[in-house]
Amino acid sequence: MNIHEKNAQSLLPQSVSCGPLPGSRKVYAHPQGRADIAVPFREIALDPTSGEPPVRVYDASGPYTEDRPTIDLSRGLASLRAPWLARRDGLLPYEGRTIRPEDNGTVSADRLVPPCPANRRPCRGRDGALVTQYEFARAGIVTEEMIFAAARENLCREQVAEGAEARLAQGESFGASIPAHVTPEFVRDEIARGRAIIPANINHPELEPMVIGRNFLVKVNANIGNSAVTSSVADEVEKMVWAIRWGADTVMDLSTGTNIHNIRDWILRNAPVPIGTVPIYQALEKVDGDPTRLTFEIFRDTLIEQAEQGVDYFTIHAGVRLAHIPLTAARTTGIVSRGGSIMARWCLAHHEESFLYERFDEICDIMRAYDVSFSLGDGLRPGSIADANDAAQFAELETLGELTKIAWAKGCQVMIEGPGHVPMHKIKVNMEKQLKECDEAPFYTLGPLTTDIAPGYDHITSGIGAAMIGWFGCAMLCYVTPKEHLGLPDRDDVKTGVITYRIAAHAADLAKGHPAAQIRDDAVSRARFDFRWQDQFNLGLDPETARAFHDETLPKEAHKAAHFCSMCGPKFCSMRITQDLREEAAAIAERDKGMAEKSAEFLEKGAKLYV
Amino acid sequence: MNIHEKNAQSLLPQSVSCGPLPGSRKVYAHPQGRADIAVPFREIALDPTSGEPPVRVYDASGPYTEDRPTIDLSRGLASLRAPWLARRDGLLPYEGRTIRPEDNGTVSADRLVPPCPANRRPCRGRDGALVTQYEFARAGIVTEEMIFAAARENLCREQVAEGAEARLAQGESFGASIPAHVTPEFVRDEIARGRAIIPANINHPELEPMVIGRNFLVKVNANIGNSAVTSSVADEVEKMVWAIRWGADTVMDLSTGTNIHNIRDWILRNAPVPIGTVPIYQALEKVDGDPTRLTFEIFRDTLIEQAEQGVDYFTIHAGVRLAHIPLTAARTTGIVSRGGSIMARWCLAHHEESFLYERFDEICDIMRAYDVSFSLGDGLRPGSIADANDAAQFAELETLGELTKIAWAKGCQVMIEGPGHVPMHKIKVNMEKQLKECDEAPFYTLGPLTTDIAPGYDHITSGIGAAMIGWFGCAMLCYVTPKEHLGLPDRDDVKTGVITYRIAAHAADLAKGHPAAQIRDDAVSRARFDFRWQDQFNLGLDPETARAFHDETLPKEAHKAAHFCSMCGPKFCSMRITQDLREEAAAIAERDKGMAEKSAEFLEKGAKLYV
Repeated sequence: MNIHEKNAQSLLPQSVSCGPLPGSRKVYAHPQGRADIAVPFREIALDPTSGEPPVRVYDASGPYTEDRPTIDLSRGLASLRAPWLARRDGLLPYEGRTIRPEDNGTVSADRLVPPCPANRRPCRGRDGALVTQYEFARAGIVTEEMIFAAARENLCREQVAEGAEARLAQGESFGASIPAHVTPEFVRDEIARGRAIIPANINHPELEPMVIGRNFLVKVNANIGNSAVTSSVADEVEKMVWAIRWGADTVMDLSTGTNIHNIRDWILRNAPVPIGTVPIYQALEKVDGDPTRLTFEIFRDTLIEQAEQGVDYFTIHAGVRLAHIPLTAARTTGIVSRGGSIMARWCLAHHEESFLYERFDEICDIMRAYDVSFSLGDGLRPGSIADANDAAQFAELETLGELTKIAWAKGCQVMIEGPGHVPMHKIKVNMEKQLKECDEAPFYTLGPLTTDIAPGYDHITSGIGAAMIGWFGCAMLCYVTPKEHLGLPDRDDVKTGVITYRIAAHAADLAKGHPAAQIRDDAVSRARFDFRWQDQFNLGLDPETARAFHDETLPKEAHKAAHFCSMCGPKFCSMRITQDLREEAAAIAERDKGMAEKSAEFLEKGAKLYV
Repeated sequence: MNIHEKNAQSLLPQSVSCGPLPGSRKVYAHPQGRADIAVPFREIALDPTSGEPPVRVYDASGPYTEDRPTIDLSRGLASLRAPWLARRDGLLPYEGRTIRPEDNGTVSADRLVPPCPANRRPCRGRDGALVTQYEFARAGIVTEEMIFAAARENLCREQVAEGAEARLAQGESFGASIPAHVTPEFVRDEIARGRAIIPANINHPELEPMVIGRNFLVKVNANIGNSAVTSSVADEVEKMVWAIRWGADTVMDLSTGTNIHNIRDWILRNAPVPIGTVPIYQALEKVDGDPTRLTFEIFRDTLIEQAEQGVDYFTIHAGVRLAHIPLTAARTTGIVSRGGSIMARWCLAHHEESFLYERFDEICDIMRAYDVSFSLGDGLRPGSIADANDAAQFAELETLGELTKIAWAKGCQVMIEGPGHVPMHKIKVNMEKQLKECDEAPFYTLGPLTTDIAPGYDHITSGIGAAMIGWFGCAMLCYVTPKEHLGLPDRDDVKTGVITYRIAAHAADLAKGHPAAQIRDDAVSRARFDFRWQDQFNLGLDPETARAFHDETLPKEAHKAAHFCSMCGPKFCSMRITQDLREEAAAIAERDKGMAEKSAEFLEKGAKLYV
């Protein structure tokens, strides 16, 4: 090993966070008749004396949370989609584009991160063949990806005591069409209508497919990425694994600076979740950060480069048109999307329409050939409450609606990005306008942040907006960390952001009436009422923090079985009093059937329930 | 000093958190024509080169945040209400109840916290005289408390550029009657209608009065209190000061165990905010924690004891009726309110109607004599998503409506407590039913928590619900800390809880269209766009955390003036690009008036705005 190799080695990820969450184990289920498809879930075991069955939950964390998983980052994850893809005759392996120094920011040899050795020869789709999930769906064909995603979505719906239909009827979904049970055929139909996507690049065989759409569970995206200022490849791969450990459904790699091609390699080969990127960031690196020097050719080259690597969705800011830019002139915070500001700069410098808009057809052809889903970027999203729902934002959204139809006609999958900073009373109209303009294509929003006055707490200002827009119909929520506006998120920030957004997504699922959503809430509540502390911790989104908090005041193991908590102490515990009360009521009812008149009404109404 | 005195001394608060927040100073404003009334605000100074005026914000933190305040906890705060109260001929000083050992839990002499030396001789109101704010309001009399509260509420409304009326029209207040400008007469009218309260015990002269009601800014309550398991008087006084430092508008002292009378003394004499309690907790201490031994006489004695000390509002669970208890039998989590479970236990044990309900008239007479406001407790609030909006909860709410009218007839001020655990789609009906049943008396809710699956993050699960119910019309939000369900909150938890709830309250104010609410958001946004980092930190709810987060990646002082942040780095900063773009557009417009045809439309529409 020479000095360059040694240096490079030190830049590589050595290990990542592995092993099950406390009390949990990974289980795989096989959809009916498909022993070849193993769909992952997490099963939380409860106190055996409780008589409670384990609780099964959706699990996007991949093999990393298996018990003693064999993870070798250099080899990458197993290619579970490989046999499915091998059977599709529309896919052609080919040599692929040659990696060029500028792909990694022309970094010096001693600073170059080597590519992940697991790199594979790319495929692309043939013209006229079925390639994308949208094309299969329109042709009436159910893919393995659809079967897989349907099995994840249908989780526990058979267990709903009062019936999935009854649960559904109790929710409020604002006109969504959530089914009582999710079948592969339902997934296919939703994709064919453009109401859902399965982001699944044909060059990302490691992917565990998942579906994004208003009639499915609300999803969460976590952003990672090094920046010109800080962080390394080891950090980024670990951040991806860490983000999915806590519940991120997709991860966007927003890296800039050097080594981004090779860092992306490492991430993709080890990612069981869809990976999204914003290709214009890398294109800009290729022209030394000068937006005015961007060309369609450089952008196109970057799309192909990343599509061959296996990126599952691209944010493309094709809705930022020349004519929209003046609409931002009087804004408080101008253009706050990086991609949006880059394109605006280009348009103004050249006094030309955006090449992303002008050559959208060609972009579609590339995206289709690899089944990269569109995430049509909201380059003109508001960056402040003051700018929410303004003319620039809505003009762009109308353009995105127009582009959605073009992309569908080209066979592509599409979702639409949304704001941003929006006060609560202006959130709903965003959702309604998006559904209308974009024919119900899935909406994917950042927050929205409901106030600007809490830097350091924007996971919360935005978690409020995210829960609401998720309820109203948003299909995926892009997380915001506590560091938003202030700095680059570290490991703790990523976890806090993901968990905050899992709360928002789950609160939305509950409110929409997703049939099985409340099973987990009810299990936590029963654990609470029974003083099964350990079960309460393990059923929560973050068992480690819950337990640590309990330990702070009642550290002893015996306290994990205590019939009180540190908040009220033994004398004041309402749950203990209620339990005593139930026992007492039962005893009285037993002892004294000829009870005094005063309590007759009570007994009649309720005491039988206590027994 | 003997050994007992020395021990006692060690239990006392030595000092509390003092001094202004970064960049802020305390200012006092005098309502027109009332030089004798000084209303506190906080003024945040901005970078002098920005040309931006300082931003004035509502400030409930009391003299503690003055520059070098003279705080002597043994003397207590200055009695700013004393001259107002002295002029009211309905108030009679009297000897007051003798403090008994059981008031402090019959603690041994060496563990006894001495009473606060600032203790005063109590007053009570004469029968037939005007005593409560409600009685004054009904008589058409504007009190100093109303003038004070109005001045706080009217903050900055004259500064709204487009006019307060226009701002108001842009909001959605669901039928509230928020005025463009808040006058003392408006406050009086709201109190007279029962739509607002000013919790202000005549024995709490240190209070800086504030108003709680749907047509005013949404308020936040923080709970403190020692418990049988942990914490001391020093902790509790500091927690109160700490909670108001970060924005709590009222504080509830939920202490149990020993020394609670004397701890309450220390808190009240040093509290510029209304203090609430749940008297049944102390009454239960007096009967050694056995609910079945409670009597009305013990409860009555406790009310008088606490009213003489100056407690501003009492939570009274008079809505937990015998007939409601069976309705909780089939619940997942039974009765989760401590007060509710205590009363349910009593009712069942005696097979009698609750004495709080039966003798509500007598309770009203006591509350009126000191102007202690009612906070009618929701003893049957749901403790889980599963139990939300059930028959028990709504039966109690109907009873609270009935009691509201009795309390008003007796001259008392009333607010109503609400849940608890409620999924998003079931929140609005809570608000609507409360307004209807309780004739628009102010609603005061805990959360609600929108899911049960995140122990350790219930400030967030509930912050979502709190923002929504605040928007829908809830007047005050009771905070939830990250430790909820797990342990007793420490200093950091209190701060996190308060700031989360300030976010929720402010998000609600924005959405309702409170005319001046957005001034602060806009100031933050302009600071962001101008890269005035220090201004952004100082304008936020938590300047220290915001700065610390920025320091983590860009620690140097020079970075506080950097025209980029660590998230995107210099090359990718959208705000910088936008600023460049504006300059460029202006330059082009200047240079080339005969611009190419393609850009003509752009120029016409917007370039003039860039100049």
